[in-house]
Amino acid sequence: MEKPVLAVLCGDDQARDLTESPAMQPIESAAVVRYTGEAGLADALRDADVLFVYDFLSRAVPDAWHAVNRLRWLHIASAGVDPVMFPGMRDSDVVLTNSRGVFDDSIAEYVLGVVLTFAKDLHGSLDLQRESRWQHRETERIAGRSVLVVGTGPIGRAIARMLRAVGMRVAGAGRRARSGDPDFGEVHASDRLVDHLPAYDYVVAVAPLTEQTKGLFDAAAFAAMKPSARFVNVGRGELVVTGDLVQALRTGGIAGAALDVFDTEPLPMDSPLWTMKNVLVSPHMSGDFIGWRDTLVEVFADNFHRWQTGAPLRNVVDKQLGYVPSDR
Amino acid sequence: MEKPVLAVLCGDDQARDLTESPAMQPIESAAVVRYTGEAGLADALRDADVLFVYDFLSRAVPDAWHAVNRLRWLHIASAGVDPVMFPGMRDSDVVLTNSRGVFDDSIAEYVLGVVLTFAKDLHGSLDLQRESRWQHRETERIAGRSVLVVGTGPIGRAIARMLRAVGMRVAGAGRRARSGDPDFGEVHASDRLVDHLPAYDYVVAVAPLTEQTKGLFDAAAFAAMKPSARFVNVGRGELVVTGDLVQALRTGGIAGAALDVFDTEPLPMDSPLWTMKNVLVSPHMSGDFIGWRDTLVEVFADNFHRWQTGAPLRNVVDKQLGYVPSDR
Repeated sequence: MEKPVLAVLCGDDQARDLTESPAMQPIESAAVVRYTGEAGLADALRDADVLFVYDFLSRAVPDAWHAVNRLRWLHIASAGVDPVMFPGMRDSDVVLTNSRGVFDDSIAEYVLGVVLTFAKDLHGSLDLQRESRWQHRETERIAGRSVLVVGTGPIGRAIARMLRAVGMRVAGAGRRARSGDPDFGEVHASDRLVDHLPAYDYVVAVAPLTEQTKGLFDAAAFAAMKPSARFVNVGRGELVVTGDLVQALRTGGIAGAALDVFDTEPLPMDSPLWTMKNVLVSPHMSGDFIGWRDTLVEVFADNFHRWQTGAPLRNVVDKQLGYVPSDR
Repeated sequence: MEKPVLAVLCGDDQARDLTESPAMQPIESAAVVRYTGEAGLADALRDADVLFVYDFLSRAVPDAWHAVNRLRWLHIASAGVDPVMFPGMRDSDVVLTNSRGVFDDSIAEYVLGVVLTFAKDLHGSLDLQRESRWQHRETERIAGRSVLVVGTGPIGRAIARMLRAVGMRVAGAGRRARSGDPDFGEVHASDRLVDHLPAYDYVVAVAPLTEQTKGLFDAAAFAAMKPSARFVNVGRGELVVTGDLVQALRTGGIAGAALDVFDTEPLPMDSPLWTMKNVLVSPHMSGDFIGWRDTLVEVFADNFHRWQTGAPLRNVVDKQLGYVPSDR
């Protein structure tokens, strides 16, 4: 029996980690593995059965797609699948799977961390510490404060559970309005977002990037939020109209923002977000716990074993929706 | 019936807040109230029945104690009673009560905030943000990490419940070793602390300051901790031998410290703690949520009503132990 051909898109600095990963060993025995950077992707895709997009920041897949002739399955080492969602892919028969589940609890911890940073003015304490200044302040409680988590996938659910566990009042926003959700209680419809935003102290963006969610957080959305509200983005930068966010932060439309993702990454040096006092910038790392890369390979290896043995793949993306539909 | 005399020790800047506090109104009707600063305390104490130490940072009570002639009750607007624990007070018949309960959940939120700051390197992100530098890092999970909370009073219990709620493994250290505690599970004996410290990723100091706990965290204690351990002090600065802590932080004996209290407050400008990269300094504010001062007056007013009507006072301190004994 002929071995299947697996193309692996990875950065030059990632190839060694991958080839040395214990989880890749059984795959290397069972398949012809072609590790490639962006430049060699088209060549690697020709006659490949499977594509593993390990370098999930790469935007190279659409341009190399012309070389696909027998690809059956594409797996991406991230939760968001927007880098591989283009018409040629969407309309093909290629099955798409993602790394749903890996980042959930880690991102939830990060979100709780930035909520507490705002509430307890921990960034203010660090600023004062730099000047050796002892300046007492009164700070906010988080118990009883309200949070709207926009995005009801597994990451949003992990965030909701964690914030609820520390006494916050949580609701969700998703494609369909509904009540009695086990994690969110009330879920509002994202297309009526501005009607609901005025009620919340914190708004967390964690929706997948789709045609429906692109630019969801615009001037109207920020105008609807409380002036005391803090906005947290751990989803995708393109969920936000960045200029509108900057304007809202500048004019006191909202009180602060913690941003882990941006419409351009790395965030350009001249972005005003870097220097705004009420903004916390982090470099797209909220989910990246120590050991995450091994876990990502393990998730792919598990699915590869399923594919070989004919078992149903895990985390199959609905290519029309742009994400893995929830079991709930 | 003659009105009782109430002396209120408060700072000059605190007097107006106090006199305007709604909770003080019924007291002003029922008692002769003498608001005083430190200089006038002895005069105010003469013929006073009750002393309300609202300025809980003051160290003036021992020097004015000679004027006490009919004092029956002293209430302090803090959880720690160490500023009024001196032989003349301890050996007198004066009943001592504190403000147990006001700060519990607020301090617990602060502790969780600094734990997440360390785990997610939020202070590192803020440092990089100052230089507009995009530098990805992998960070730690808090789920499954172990915490020893040294001090099993109500603040320690609130900390334990909150850290447990987010998936950390929590144990306590108190006067008596015991198992099956509802908040801590296992409680170790504080006098065997060094035997237990090696097992924990985080160590939180929240014990009352007594002869037994003074200097509890010394060179031996820090040497017993993991090099990766973080130390959090929300109790009293004097629980720690500061020079030993500085040395442990300098030499990598421990990985970091978040300090809200110090043996000298305000922390002197020339303290090395201000500028150490792995230290978070805050100015004794971890419990001071917006509204705390009103709450402190309400706690006293509730007890004053009890005192007037002959009901049992709340939060009576065992003057030999130096804290309110637990119900458990």
